[in-house]
Parts: sequence; structure tokens; C-alpha cells
Amino acid sequence: MAAIVVRIFLISILCLIGLASAAQSVIRMPSDRTAGETDSFCNSWRLSVETNNAGLWSTPEGCLGYRVDYFTGVQYASDLTVVASDSIAFARSVTPAGDGKDGWVFDVDETLLSNLPFYEKFGYSAESFNEELWNEWVNSTAAEALPESLGLYRELKELGFTVFILTGRDEFQRNATTANLLAAGFRDWEKLILRGKSDRGKRAVVYKSEKRQELVDQGYRIHGNSGDQWSDLLGYAMAVRSFKYPNPLYYIA
Amino acid sequence: MAAIVVRIFLISILCLIGLASAAQSVIRMPSDRTAGETDSFCNSWRLSVETNNAGLWSTPEGCLGYRVDYFTGVQYASDLTVVASDSIAFARSVTPAGDGKDGWVFDVDETLLSNLPFYEKFGYSAESFNEELWNEWVNSTAAEALPESLGLYRELKELGFTVFILTGRDEFQRNATTANLLAAGFRDWEKLILRGKSDRGKRAVVYKSEKRQELVDQGYRIHGNSGDQWSDLLGYAMAVRSFKYPNPLYYIA
Repeated sequence: MAAIVVRIFLISILCLIGLASAAQSVIRMPSDRTAGETDSFCNSWRLSVETNNAGLWSTPEGCLGYRVDYFTGVQYASDLTVVASDSIAFARSVTPAGDGKDGWVFDVDETLLSNLPFYEKFGYSAESFNEELWNEWVNSTAAEALPESLGLYRELKELGFTVFILTGRDEFQRNATTANLLAAGFRDWEKLILRGKSDRGKRAVVYKSEKRQELVDQGYRIHGNSGDQWSDLLGYAMAVRSFKYPNPLYYIA
Repeated sequence: MAAIVVRIFLISILCLIGLASAAQSVIRMPSDRTAGETDSFCNSWRLSVETNNAGLWSTPEGCLGYRVDYFTGVQYASDLTVVASDSIAFARSVTPAGDGKDGWVFDVDETLLSNLPFYEKFGYSAESFNEELWNEWVNSTAAEALPESLGLYRELKELGFTVFILTGRDEFQRNATTANLLAAGFRDWEKLILRGKSDRGKRAVVYKSEKRQELVDQGYRIHGNSGDQWSDLLGYAMAVRSFKYPNPLYYIA
């Protein structure tokens, strides 16, 4: 992963200190909470992550188990189903011009492909995130499609959208990424855009805005944009509608 | 409320038809779900509302009871606490320039003031929303502060922020709105901005962007923006950080 990518997998002490100093009058310590209060708090924490209220977040220590339950239980799949359903409902409301310029942008990780088997090894908290192991995982091309995203992708193609895949993965991962996307069932994208040399050191939100702007300059109308990070969706040359995929695992600024 | 304001309080048939046509392959009917599945689905629905994935939403019939529980139980208060905590943490990270130009923008309804006693009369679904009754409620000046917002507001003032209150309420409601804000404990805002004659017919996101742009043109730096609608937060002249307050009651485009 590019060095600029900020991945937040912090637990424990950092979080306690942060919460205590940042919101001492509002937030109590996890040890003060009953089980039900912990659930409510962790629900609120996850909402704050998904709405971008939290900004550059770290995971509250008391919510580590909650997060494992989120991924291993039914909620994550349910959330993905509703995101896909919202996206399809919007896509069906668009009347394609038939000129091939009706575009839809997808991110890769945690949007088209799921890296949960990789993060599972780290107890879904990935405090031990290791770039070398990550690159091995990417090269393994073993990531599977999020099934809801594969269904959405196929329907968008049927509806006549031109699909662009815009990822923070580096250009040197092009072959592995292409092989993995094909193995996972994705076909016929117009362009797979990765970070080139000139994109290194750029914040994700800038890099992705620039790349979308290039598409707009080429005459594409970006109707939809699907990504698990707010940096996939905000900035400029924004899509008509943006679809935030759930991701309480990591944050990319 | 201005005519342009779109309030979505739909239930029942409309929703069923909408879901069935928009996502027949993904979403099942409420009657097909177990209680646990309904909770998961309604959690996902609320997340889709709060992330703006849902766009112009209507409430799934199967989630009406869930929504009552949300407001009458602990989750709404917990969510508000975390929004205030995120906002304060960010505000404390800002170093005010001491020139009075460090601004923070607040919306009114469901952000500074709670209208839950009004909506409670309609079972929190307000399908019977009535402008006449709403204006009576505004004139009663009986809305109370969201306590988490009052705490945030006071701390922002102490930190040296200049507060602007930017609401979709109409100019003719200025006196009642001022009286209500004062009665609820809010003090010393720089400016209360309501929809004037020239703002009628404008989409909220345009009206609010224009008013923020005027502040920027006057030299204010808008650090934070707190609102319960995405139309409070998106558009242009956006704040450095936006804080989305929870509101699964209604949507303003």
C-alpha cells in the first residue's frame, strides 16, 4: 500500500487517552458501562465512523468484540445488501444517453473485493497491519467479491453504465489486481486506475478527485460512486450520488 | 416551512411498492423476516439514511416500531453524545486566530432544538405532518435544547468560536425562533440566518451553500458545521469538518 495511506488500527491505551482528554465530560470509561450501554456506545461509534463524524478515528477498546460480532454476524451482510439496493434503485432511475458516457466509479478494497480473510488473521482489528503481508495477500489474488457488489456491478453493466475502477492500490499491483477482479467475477470495466508515480504522496481524496476530474474532462457523466472510504466519495468531480460502503476496520484520509 | 422543503414521512404501501420494484432481487418483504432479521434490516436502513446512501427515502413499514424504540430508548441519546464528543474533539484541535473570524455553523431543528414532542404526537412517523400545526408549534417556542448540543455550543463559545445559526425556517419565524433559542439556553450567536423572500423556492443545499459562501466572502473560516440533514452540510463553502446529527424522521432535499 502507498505510504500516504493512513490506516488506523489502534486499540487500547491510545484510545482511552484520546477519549478521556477529548471528551472527558461526555464519554465515560468502558469499565463504567453495562453490557447494554457498551452496545449502544459501540453502535454510536460505528455510526460516527460511517457518517465521517469521527474523522481520523481509532477504535475504542470496548468495541473490539463488538466489531468482530459485526463482521461475523448478520449485520455487515445486511448493511451491504441495503447499500446495493440503494445503488440499484438510483441506477434504475437514470436514463442512459446511449453514448457510452454514463459512468459509475467503484473502489476495490472492501467495495468490490473483500479482504476480510486477511484482516481476520488479526482479529479484525489489524493493529499488526504489515505492508509486506498485505502485498503478499494482494499477490495471492485470493480476495473474493462482495456478493452484493458483484450483483450490483452486473446490473449496472446490463443497464448500460460504463464502469471505472479507481483504487488506491499502486500501479505495481495492476496485474495482481486485474487477475483478482477477473477471478472474482468482474468483467468489462472501461478502465482500472491505480496510483502511478505522479500520484505518490497525494492524499487519497485529492488523487481520487483528480482522476474523476479527468473522466469528466473526457465527457463522462459520473452518476454513481461506490466506496468504503469518504476519501473515495468527497472532494471534487463528485458523483451525482455517492454510496458509502460500511467499513469500521480502517480509515484512509 | 418553505414549500421547497421536502419532508418524507411516508409509510406502508408506497414503501412496499418502492422496495419491491427497486430492489426485488435483494430486499424481501417485511412479513418474510424474523424479528432479528427485522432489527438487522432496520439498522441497515437507518445507516443508509444517516450516510445519505438512501437519498430521498421513505420509511419501511417494518421499521416504524424500530424508530419509536430508537427515539424512546437509549440509542438516540447515545448517538447525540458521540456527535457532540466528535465535534468537541475537533474544535479543541483548532487554534483560533483571535480575530473573531473562526466560525461554526449550526442548524436549528433536530440540531440545536428538539421537536420530538411535536413529532411524538404523530407516532414519530408524522405521516400527518401539517404545516399549520407545525407553525403553531414553532410559535409556541416550546422546543427544548438537545442537551448535548447546548453543551457543545457553550464550549465552542468558550473556545472562542463565532457561531452562526443557519436554518431553513422562514424569515417570518425570526421572532419565535429567537425567543425559543434564548429560552432553551443558547446565547450570543453572531447571526441567525433564515430563509428570506429571495431564498424561497431554492433547494436547501443551495440556500445553505449560498449563505455559507457569504460568510466566507466576509472573511470567516468555517471550521465546523453541525446539522441533521446532508443538505445542511454538502454543496459548496463546506466546513473543514461536518457533523451529521442523527435524524431518521424526515429528509430535506
